[in-house]
Amino acid sequence: MPSESKASRLLLLAFLLVGVAAGHDDAAMRRTMEEFAGFPVSDDVEGPFTASRVDSEGLQRQIDELASFSDSPAPSVTRVLYSDKDVQARRYIKGIMNQRGLAVREDAVGNIFGCWEGSEPGLGTVGTGSHVDAIPFSGKYDGVVGVLGALEAIRLLKRSGFQPKRSLEVIMFTSEEPTRFGISCLGSRLMAGIEELAQSLRKVVDNQNVSFLDAAQSAGYKMDPEDLHSVFLKKDSYSAFIELHIEQGPILEKEGIPIGIVTAIAAPASLMVEFEGNGGHAGAVLMPARNDAGLAAAELALAVEKHVLESGSIDTVGTVGILQLHPGAINSIPSKSHLEIDVRDIDEKRRNDVIEKIRQAATEISKNRGVVLSEFNIINKDPPALSDKSVVDAMEFAVKQLNLDYKKMISRAYHDSLFMARVSPMGMIFIPCYKGYSHKPEEYASPEDMSNGVKVLALTMAKLSLE
Amino acid sequence: MPSESKASRLLLLAFLLVGVAAGHDDAAMRRTMEEFAGFPVSDDVEGPFTASRVDSEGLQRQIDELASFSDSPAPSVTRVLYSDKDVQARRYIKGIMNQRGLAVREDAVGNIFGCWEGSEPGLGTVGTGSHVDAIPFSGKYDGVVGVLGALEAIRLLKRSGFQPKRSLEVIMFTSEEPTRFGISCLGSRLMAGIEELAQSLRKVVDNQNVSFLDAAQSAGYKMDPEDLHSVFLKKDSYSAFIELHIEQGPILEKEGIPIGIVTAIAAPASLMVEFEGNGGHAGAVLMPARNDAGLAAAELALAVEKHVLESGSIDTVGTVGILQLHPGAINSIPSKSHLEIDVRDIDEKRRNDVIEKIRQAATEISKNRGVVLSEFNIINKDPPALSDKSVVDAMEFAVKQLNLDYKKMISRAYHDSLFMARVSPMGMIFIPCYKGYSHKPEEYASPEDMSNGVKVLALTMAKLSLE
Repeated sequence: MPSESKASRLLLLAFLLVGVAAGHDDAAMRRTMEEFAGFPVSDDVEGPFTASRVDSEGLQRQIDELASFSDSPAPSVTRVLYSDKDVQARRYIKGIMNQRGLAVREDAVGNIFGCWEGSEPGLGTVGTGSHVDAIPFSGKYDGVVGVLGALEAIRLLKRSGFQPKRSLEVIMFTSEEPTRFGISCLGSRLMAGIEELAQSLRKVVDNQNVSFLDAAQSAGYKMDPEDLHSVFLKKDSYSAFIELHIEQGPILEKEGIPIGIVTAIAAPASLMVEFEGNGGHAGAVLMPARNDAGLAAAELALAVEKHVLESGSIDTVGTVGILQLHPGAINSIPSKSHLEIDVRDIDEKRRNDVIEKIRQAATEISKNRGVVLSEFNIINKDPPALSDKSVVDAMEFAVKQLNLDYKKMISRAYHDSLFMARVSPMGMIFIPCYKGYSHKPEEYASPEDMSNGVKVLALTMAKLSLE
Repeated sequence: MPSESKASRLLLLAFLLVGVAAGHDDAAMRRTMEEFAGFPVSDDVEGPFTASRVDSEGLQRQIDELASFSDSPAPSVTRVLYSDKDVQARRYIKGIMNQRGLAVREDAVGNIFGCWEGSEPGLGTVGTGSHVDAIPFSGKYDGVVGVLGALEAIRLLKRSGFQPKRSLEVIMFTSEEPTRFGISCLGSRLMAGIEELAQSLRKVVDNQNVSFLDAAQSAGYKMDPEDLHSVFLKKDSYSAFIELHIEQGPILEKEGIPIGIVTAIAAPASLMVEFEGNGGHAGAVLMPARNDAGLAAAELALAVEKHVLESGSIDTVGTVGILQLHPGAINSIPSKSHLEIDVRDIDEKRRNDVIEKIRQAATEISKNRGVVLSEFNIINKDPPALSDKSVVDAMEFAVKQLNLDYKKMISRAYHDSLFMARVSPMGMIFIPCYKGYSHKPEEYASPEDMSNGVKVLALTMAKLSLE
């Protein structure tokens, strides 16, 4: 395809996407577009200005409908891997993929792919997507915007008459959240071909002692353990991967900037820690005779905060999101405690230094309290990921064409993109969210911000599809 | 009844209970007994020495069978109010009561009574009993020894040919443990006629939002809220109440003493505390922007320990047995935390001073961390109970007749006796338990110690029955 024609098609697209919002004269705009495109606006487009609009109401309705598949009451959302609600959400997403005319397939663990075949399907595909699982009592936008928004981008591109060269594909990743099996980005990690994960998935169990394989089967993904390897992506399957996501931080909103172009994803690490002491009756065991595993956990939680703050960098964060006491009765001294700790930094070494200090604190606490540090397990300690220049360039091109202000920034949250970056050039588009809230019911992104994100995604994919 | 005959009957009983263990010559002992009794040993006794024996194997078998009704794997026991396992346990206890020839009845909340009618049933009854509910992952002896042991004491008395004057009654109390609704000694509290409890039971829910009334109905106790008042005991229903229990502390075992006579029950208090902060994404929210409700809880747990230790008395104990974080995900900053705190002392004022300091600490922590102290609720703050002299005297009589060493002591754990003491003269019999362990799977009492406890209980009840 001559490059002039390609450029024209993209410019047409950009015009379509800028739409009425930019305030152009309709007839003049149509003329300009047809000039750029070198062909009349296609007939299956309802009209250039109708077609150019993101269906914000429709997108919001889908977000609300998806949020209703929840194991906790609205406005909170709880949708855990392979639960009934997760299965309902999967069915819902596949339904929209079908409506969009995408070819739908699922892999062994339930990563869902909706493909729009390009004119040269032999080339690497341009992928986009995110997740729809939700941690307990969280919100409706995290991940969801990157799946439903991508499907809306596909609708826009189809309506505009765009014809992809490379295939375009929307992916709904399985279990980005670590809620059930303690493994974050389970689907994308496995797609990235991590052999250790394939091994550990054969034996991992949730806190109800249900194995991953049984849980998957109950959700309709019956597999032989060997099938886990079939999830691994073939080399060069994707020429690019772009994820649209709410920022989950306050920067874009505070600075009034509609689009963030992510240049790197901070390096997350997860620790699992357990103390074992002596339980006993809360009335009968006198204080000097106690080895309270719960108090050891309380001390460690405060030590995490202390060492994170002592790193001296604003970019170091540490969280004890899970702290459980066993047996968990008011009149019983905790005999065991379990903590799950999340530590992140944009500097991998500094993060690992903090982890080392947490380890030392745990050892010291166990000595002082006469409890056993029965587990100190670094579940993962992923390196940071950099966005690929080709994808960043395409995102910048799109944002500029759409006359949107933008900012290059770092993602402090991890995403499936962290693992897609191992097997594909990667980039992420951020949109603002209310007060930076995420992982709670107050999570919110405005229809306008989502609409901007969808347009940037559509144009970025279109550009990358033609390369 | 002439007092000589009464004394003779009790001495006969004591001989029967001392049994072969004391090493008497069989024929000589039989002669002595018949002399004391003034009548031949009754025909329905299989033989004086057989009849005199506590059936330790049978009692242990029952304890093991009861332990199999558990929602956690052996050796731990989890049997929560109105669960299926609790219902199975109730059926089991009623079965044994029937085997013993007792008249079985249940009140509206499921306190179970097995009555052996005396020759003068119009007099106040001599009651005994305990509970069989078990906190999560606890052991098989707490409470159970006082129910199954009491039923074994009834068997002994029946086999010995004893005829009670006052009726004897074995009670299985509903929900001594606070696991499900946060209310300890629910059954005995209600029997003691506490109006506030009757009111609060109309609306209390468990952590699954199941109401007390619905839970009771699902266990077969369908009631109108008004029926709660029918549980209140009529004045002078009981002339005495004795509870047999494992010590749940190490003293008897350490000192090699088989029987503890409890003279007072320490005063327990329960607090429920909640902090509300701001949640958010563990990666995205930087440390200075956080109001972490989980860290507030960790600080308060350590403050409880500090203030308890600073009371300066070995008798002050404080425990954070429950500490829950919401939403409870590794990558989510806790937006809420929930603590349940148990504080006890034999000195009520000193205990209340500690509670006040915990309250101050909670307020201070909430200020420092910018979290809201959304609840600081003293669920109960019961006064201590004293054993009644008449019951203590009867227990001492029994122990001396049985040639057992004993020690007067305080119960640091609370029991249903704490509330029975409000409506009846009360006393408790303690037996040693392994290392003082309780509320954990390692809980253990030896057959010999249980057998001694059963004998003391039988003779104490017999004596009180004739008074």
